[in-house]
Amino acid sequence: MAEKVAVFRKEHFNAAHRLYNKQWSDEKNDAVFGLCNNPNYHGHNYELIIKVVGEPDPETGYVIDLKQLSELIRSEVIYRFDHKNLNLDTKEFADLNPTAENIVKVIYELLRPRLDSRLQLWVRLFETERNFVEYPA
Amino acid sequence: MAEKVAVFRKEHFNAAHRLYNKQWSDEKNDAVFGLCNNPNYHGHNYELIIKVVGEPDPETGYVIDLKQLSELIRSEVIYRFDHKNLNLDTKEFADLNPTAENIVKVIYELLRPRLDSRLQLWVRLFETERNFVEYPA
Amino acid sequence: MAEKVAVFRKEHFNAAHRLYNKQWSDEKNDAVFGLCNNPNYHGHNYELIIKVVGEPDPETGYVIDLKQLSELIRSEVIYRFDHKNLNLDTKEFADLNPTAENIVKVIYELLRPRLDSRLQLWVRLFETERNFVEYPA
Amino acid sequence: MAEKVAVFRKEHFNAAHRLYNKQWSDEKNDAVFGLCNNPNYHGHNYELIIKVVGEPDPETGYVIDLKQLSELIRSEVIYRFDHKNLNLDTKEFADLNPTAENIVKVIYELLRPRLDSRLQLWVRLFETERNFVEYPA
Amino acid sequence: MAEKVAVFRKEHFNAAHRLYNKQWSDEKNDAVFGLCNNPNYHGHNYELIIKVVGEPDPETGYVIDLKQLSELIRSEVIYRFDHKNLNLDTKEFADLNPTAENIVKVIYELLRPRLDSRLQLWVRLFETERNFVEYPA
Amino acid sequence: MAEKVAVFRKEHFNAAHRLYNKQWSDEKNDAVFGLCNNPNYHGHNYELIIKVVGEPDPETGYVIDLKQLSELIRSEVIYRFDHKNLNLDTKEFADLNPTAENIVKVIYELLRPRLDSRLQLWVRLFETERNFVEYPA
Repeated sequence: MAEKVAVFRKEHFNAAHRLYNKQWSDEKNDAVFGLCNNPNYHGHNYELIIKVVGEPDPETGYVIDLKQLSELIRSEVIYRFDHKNLNLDTKEFADLNPTAENIVKVIYELLRPRLDSRLQLWVRLFETERNFVEYPA
Repeated sequence: MAEKVAVFRKEHFNAAHRLYNKQWSDEKNDAVFGLCNNPNYHGHNYELIIKVVGEPDPETGYVIDLKQLSELIRSEVIYRFDHKNLNLDTKEFADLNPTAENIVKVIYELLRPRLDSRLQLWVRLFETERNFVEYPA
Repeated sequence: MAEKVAVFRKEHFNAAHRLYNKQWSDEKNDAVFGLCNNPNYHGHNYELIIKVVGEPDPETGYVIDLKQLSELIRSEVIYRFDHKNLNLDTKEFADLNPTAENIVKVIYELLRPRLDSRLQLWVRLFETERNFVEYPA
Repeated sequence: MAEKVAVFRKEHFNAAHRLYNKQWSDEKNDAVFGLCNNPNYHGHNYELIIKVVGEPDPETGYVIDLKQLSELIRSEVIYRFDHKNLNLDTKEFADLNPTAENIVKVIYELLRPRLDSRLQLWVRLFETERNFVEYPA
Repeated sequence: MAEKVAVFRKEHFNAAHRLYNKQWSDEKNDAVFGLCNNPNYHGHNYELIIKVVGEPDPETGYVIDLKQLSELIRSEVIYRFDHKNLNLDTKEFADLNPTAENIVKVIYELLRPRLDSRLQLWVRLFETERNFVEYPA
Repeated sequence: MAEKVAVFRKEHFNAAHRLYNKQWSDEKNDAVFGLCNNPNYHGHNYELIIKVVGEPDPETGYVIDLKQLSELIRSEVIYRFDHKNLNLDTKEFADLNPTAENIVKVIYELLRPRLDSRLQLWVRLFETERNFVEYPA
């Protein structure tokens, strides 16, 4: 709708992870995930861009106060994942392979119930400068 | 439509502003806008990305000549806002709170009538590297 | 559809080109294309972002293996255009003006038949940091 | 000395300012400072890079704890200048023209006495992505 | 000297070039310069950072007016090389191999005589985001 | 010396690490290294900039062939550290705390003997966009 505006907030966290499927043999995991299957983990600086769409409040001119959005992202996402081993230290990826695709969906599910239902949400996650994902597509 | 291509042009301007609602008390403005309500103003390097969508001209291969788009952005937007105090020096924000949401809508309204009606327009505005907006959403 | 995720891969190539319409006089080409019509060519560092949308495979958590996507982009696009003169060294632009709009469509057409039909594709091409295009729009 | 390592920390602040020399006529200020002399101020997103050189502590492997350096920069510089009008809201620029050259020297003088005398200090300040300064040279 | 400040200005130009040594056989040129020896040329977006060191003028607070430095870079460097074929369109590289090392030295020699002798000069040139040079070292 | 030119090459690797001093108690490690002491590791996208200074070869115009420098960095540094756990998977950090300061010195020591003694070497390492180090200082 023409009156809606999108607002974006960028945050980041640093984490370790390992990609593998617990149902598979080591050989198959190596064949599919290559270096990303290092059993001792590797890591990334994850850059996160949260997009929220809604109609600006006529009194404030804000779709959402970006300081409040930043605090929400920090309390729900950054505090949970920053300086963590995603496989070992988080319940979200205890049984879910922490690919960028799965991480971005988990972050969406963490934030969605905390936002007003009139606001739409998208999440973009950079695993590296050259590999990134977005949800919903 | 499959034959349409989007073209983007990035420009920038530097401006001072203050966020507040003239109908509110100082206390309420401080509570809502915090540091952004400094009565002596603060400022930003605004980065602007203009997106224009249309079918390329078969003779030139251009949706729109980006040199002409750049000149249009400069004459309608940059000349108006660059090195200005948005609250004091512009008629657009004399009575409109210069939040990023309101600025991006004003820029859209300035450019829309100057573009061929067969072309679609979107505007993205970065207030900082981490806070940005887009219109229409 | 809510379960779809977008994945992006960034690559780059360096090439020379000249913009002109063979049907036109030199005067008209100069008037329309200006410096870009230099008969001895000029060049760019082209940055390419490929976006692929699909449902992640439940076993891998991948929409598509980004190493495989990277190899596909390299074999179909980078190998073809990197360190080339687009007008003289490629059959794609022998008779097509190598504007960013035309290049981005050619890249789309090169990649589309090589991707699974269940995957959607978008291509973004940066000619410079300030001038870029996307297809489909 | 070969054993020394340089460590860098990047921070930022947003501020308004006006360039002018109080001893000069309006005409001369306009001629020299142009748009930067707007009496109603304009503003910038200032990016700050602090460089500290010293020998790493053999027990920690740190030249200086970057969390402590970040807190020092925030308490001495960011808290003082962020969301401020440099001319009106700070004693440092009450009588000193806030050019990038003068701001970078003021920041150096604020930080120098707070750092261990065995550490060397340099300050780089970006006024825009294209205009920046460093002190000492 | 402690009172000196460095100021930097970033500009860019787009050009085509070919690396080769006219004294060598085609085979040797291919072996040494590889893809960069394409006889039909390739090209780059060159990013240029000019660093000037001096004592700020006490009346203006400027080492050098960056608008004037920008105009000097444009008239001496950008106008000469932008949208050009360095090998064919410039006298500077008619007999000099346009490697980044040679280009950065040529740019230094073009600017040095145009700057006040009390000012020191350095030039950094990015051929790509990942390959760049600086002179003097 | 005035005839010398600096050339730079940027590469990157992704790794996991943990900061701690094996001689210290858990409490002291937590107090000093905070989140960076997570026993399950965290990780980073490390960006590496290698600077080599020398006189360009008059026949090639190169200080060093950047393709060869890139291959050297890959074989000595990237192959060794990329997608590794620095503490567990590398002999260099088996007994050395992998702070950015220590990593940058290790990389220097790996590359120095592989470069011609007439060339000077500096290494810059970004642990994040906001925290980085350089050696020698």
